[in-house]
Amino acid sequence: MEALRACVDREIPRAVADLRRLVRIPSVAAQRQGIPEAVQATSELLREAGGHVHVLEHEGANPVVTAEFDGRSPRTLLFYNHYDVQPAEPLDEWSVPPFDLTERDGLLLGRGVSDNKGDLVTRIAALRALRAARGALPCRVKFAVEGEEEIGSVHFGAITRAHVEVLRADACVWEYGERDHEERMHIVCGMKGLCYLELEATTANVDLHSSLGAIIEGAGFRLAWALSTLKDPSGRVLIPGHYDRVRPPTPAEEEAIRRIPPDVVSAVQQQVGVRRLIGDPDASAAVRQLLLAPTCTICGLWGGYTGQGAKTVLPRVARAKVDFRLVPDQDPHEVAQAVRRHLDAHGFTDVGLRVLAAEFPWRTDLEDPFVETVRDAVAHATGRETLLYPTSAGTGPMHDLGPVLGIPLVSVGGGYWNSRAHAPDENVRASDFRETIVLMAHLLERFAEVA
Amino acid sequence: MEALRACVDREIPRAVADLRRLVRIPSVAAQRQGIPEAVQATSELLREAGGHVHVLEHEGANPVVTAEFDGRSPRTLLFYNHYDVQPAEPLDEWSVPPFDLTERDGLLLGRGVSDNKGDLVTRIAALRALRAARGALPCRVKFAVEGEEEIGSVHFGAITRAHVEVLRADACVWEYGERDHEERMHIVCGMKGLCYLELEATTANVDLHSSLGAIIEGAGFRLAWALSTLKDPSGRVLIPGHYDRVRPPTPAEEEAIRRIPPDVVSAVQQQVGVRRLIGDPDASAAVRQLLLAPTCTICGLWGGYTGQGAKTVLPRVARAKVDFRLVPDQDPHEVAQAVRRHLDAHGFTDVGLRVLAAEFPWRTDLEDPFVETVRDAVAHATGRETLLYPTSAGTGPMHDLGPVLGIPLVSVGGGYWNSRAHAPDENVRASDFRETIVLMAHLLERFAEVA
Repeated sequence: MEALRACVDREIPRAVADLRRLVRIPSVAAQRQGIPEAVQATSELLREAGGHVHVLEHEGANPVVTAEFDGRSPRTLLFYNHYDVQPAEPLDEWSVPPFDLTERDGLLLGRGVSDNKGDLVTRIAALRALRAARGALPCRVKFAVEGEEEIGSVHFGAITRAHVEVLRADACVWEYGERDHEERMHIVCGMKGLCYLELEATTANVDLHSSLGAIIEGAGFRLAWALSTLKDPSGRVLIPGHYDRVRPPTPAEEEAIRRIPPDVVSAVQQQVGVRRLIGDPDASAAVRQLLLAPTCTICGLWGGYTGQGAKTVLPRVARAKVDFRLVPDQDPHEVAQAVRRHLDAHGFTDVGLRVLAAEFPWRTDLEDPFVETVRDAVAHATGRETLLYPTSAGTGPMHDLGPVLGIPLVSVGGGYWNSRAHAPDENVRASDFRETIVLMAHLLERFAEVA
Repeated sequence: MEALRACVDREIPRAVADLRRLVRIPSVAAQRQGIPEAVQATSELLREAGGHVHVLEHEGANPVVTAEFDGRSPRTLLFYNHYDVQPAEPLDEWSVPPFDLTERDGLLLGRGVSDNKGDLVTRIAALRALRAARGALPCRVKFAVEGEEEIGSVHFGAITRAHVEVLRADACVWEYGERDHEERMHIVCGMKGLCYLELEATTANVDLHSSLGAIIEGAGFRLAWALSTLKDPSGRVLIPGHYDRVRPPTPAEEEAIRRIPPDVVSAVQQQVGVRRLIGDPDASAAVRQLLLAPTCTICGLWGGYTGQGAKTVLPRVARAKVDFRLVPDQDPHEVAQAVRRHLDAHGFTDVGLRVLAAEFPWRTDLEDPFVETVRDAVAHATGRETLLYPTSAGTGPMHDLGPVLGIPLVSVGGGYWNSRAHAPDENVRASDFRETIVLMAHLLERFAEVA
């Protein structure tokens, strides 16, 4: 282990340089920027580390960069990462240039440093360190680095299903990880799904003077009434059949959730200034609710006059973006159809509906030995306490790899509680960056041993 | 009458020049533009017509320009007008420069040409024509020209109450009028009141990732739920006591409403592409509902992400602008307080409320002889059929003059069904402009005779 750590230390300058090279490419999928450059740089980094690179192209999609590395054991570990990043806006809230790597006060700052270019670089650096320390990799390694994660992995499922042999592996380390406010390492084995809808109420072909509101209903109330039928204040989604497919958690999932300390919720509450939780759960019930409850939230709504002061207008159109987080085995396409039927049944045939994103939920079986391998590797390589999450409350395209390849997926990586993914001043701690390279190298060795 | 018409014809070039002079001043109260210039130009026009001008100043208010003209009869007719206009935006939808008078195809076009600079000019022109035709005015005439009508006449009531003697008159001709799509002249004797509120739901001190929607309620649903309690789909306002102060229409008001042909509603419906009316009233019930029903409408709502595509954010704040139109004797301040109590009673103590505008409703007694004087004058001067409206569906500060001076107020003026007040390409027809000058002159003579 000490030889490995010494080799990792020698790899750090190169790893930081690699990260700088990636951060300088503003590969914002939502703004269709920097994609070819990011594909090229990612391919080069993987090739320079000794990988056989294969770029998977797909009609209308940002390419998926894959790579394969030989190793001593025939077992194969797959790393899932992405080269696209969130937009840097609001620019004036950054204290550093977002698309340049800044080293300051023990931090590495820049867009994508945490989500997800930093993780990609730590994994590549781990391969170099292992070769330097051991002469060869302990097992075979693959990478799948997509370019649409931040816009809902729109084509990733179609690509993985078309290239199963290229991606074939025995287990997958997912993109990211977090050290929480108590410096415990989260190990995440599942993701919620997502059905993201846009609702549009239309009531006339022009905006009207609001005095006509005596006889003509405006789009604002049509939308407010429609939205208010979707969920009740206890948090229960009111779409008929919405809970029918919800699979009860396994005993292992229940046990893992019981072991997650309630402070993970209370810390968030304190940070964001929220006293009351939906349904007033006690502290431990809140963790269960966060991880197991299907949600329905309004991400945005708009219509009519939104400027200063009073304008008496009856808007012809009002819109809302509504996000349903799903748990196994809910199906985002079924949910969209059920919302349509629900709106119709409540008389909201005038409220249009568009599906903006659809992702399936997925959970890895917690009893899969790979979960324990990752936990042990974390404990041994970092000395940190681990918290096992059967699922994240968030969403990612695990369903596009887990059931397709029939393998366990576990997420662990380089972030911490203040990494500010998606926000200004995104960062990782330099000490975590080093620790994560050690962790990934050690994890590869453990994974090879288990075989 | 023929001598008068001839004198009006000779006045037209001067009247058009006066209108051009006013239109060139972009006196947009909402944007705090051009107010001193408009006060000066209005004062000059009134002074040039022989009036004794007195500008009423008030702390924080756009001044009210008043003028007084001598006449043969001791009776006094007051004209209420305003020199402020709506913003010209959206500028790219105008086919002419908004702040310049354009004469084209029998139309006069420009911001304020209809609402309300054109009406002011026709009234001043009528005084000139009368003097030219008769040597003197038939009665005393006063003007009250305010500068905040388009922003809710915020200070007008305080000013009228402080200057009752300056404004003292026997009757008032209100600011505007309309020839409808059947070329009938509308004569309007009342206005609804207004309570315009901004509601603000706040749920956290930062926007959150929507995955937290499992335990933390977002501002979007809090707002949608709160709004949905304000009104039911039959149009009934659900605030307790909201209808308690609603005064039943008088027999004369009922009779006048019965005489308004249902096509005034069906024409609007067709124009704006609306099939269904609130509560499915039959054609004549729809007119009654338009004029007598208190309303609650959402003029605007906004919060969270409103751009392209999907962003999974749980907004910390969401807002709505809500407009209640009121009928006698509802009180806008009482309504605001009742909404606050209603929100609290439904558990929406987290939804803030601000009053952005408050105006009282007012109706002139239809049996007042002045109403008949105006109708006769219209019939005689224009040959048009008249429709008597006990009230407009809209709002204006009649309550700041009617009960203060104890006089009848009747609105008639120069607009037509396509005048596009508040919209791009605002216009009046040149033939109506002339007709309105004749009408105002004739009305002054009738008014003097009645005395």
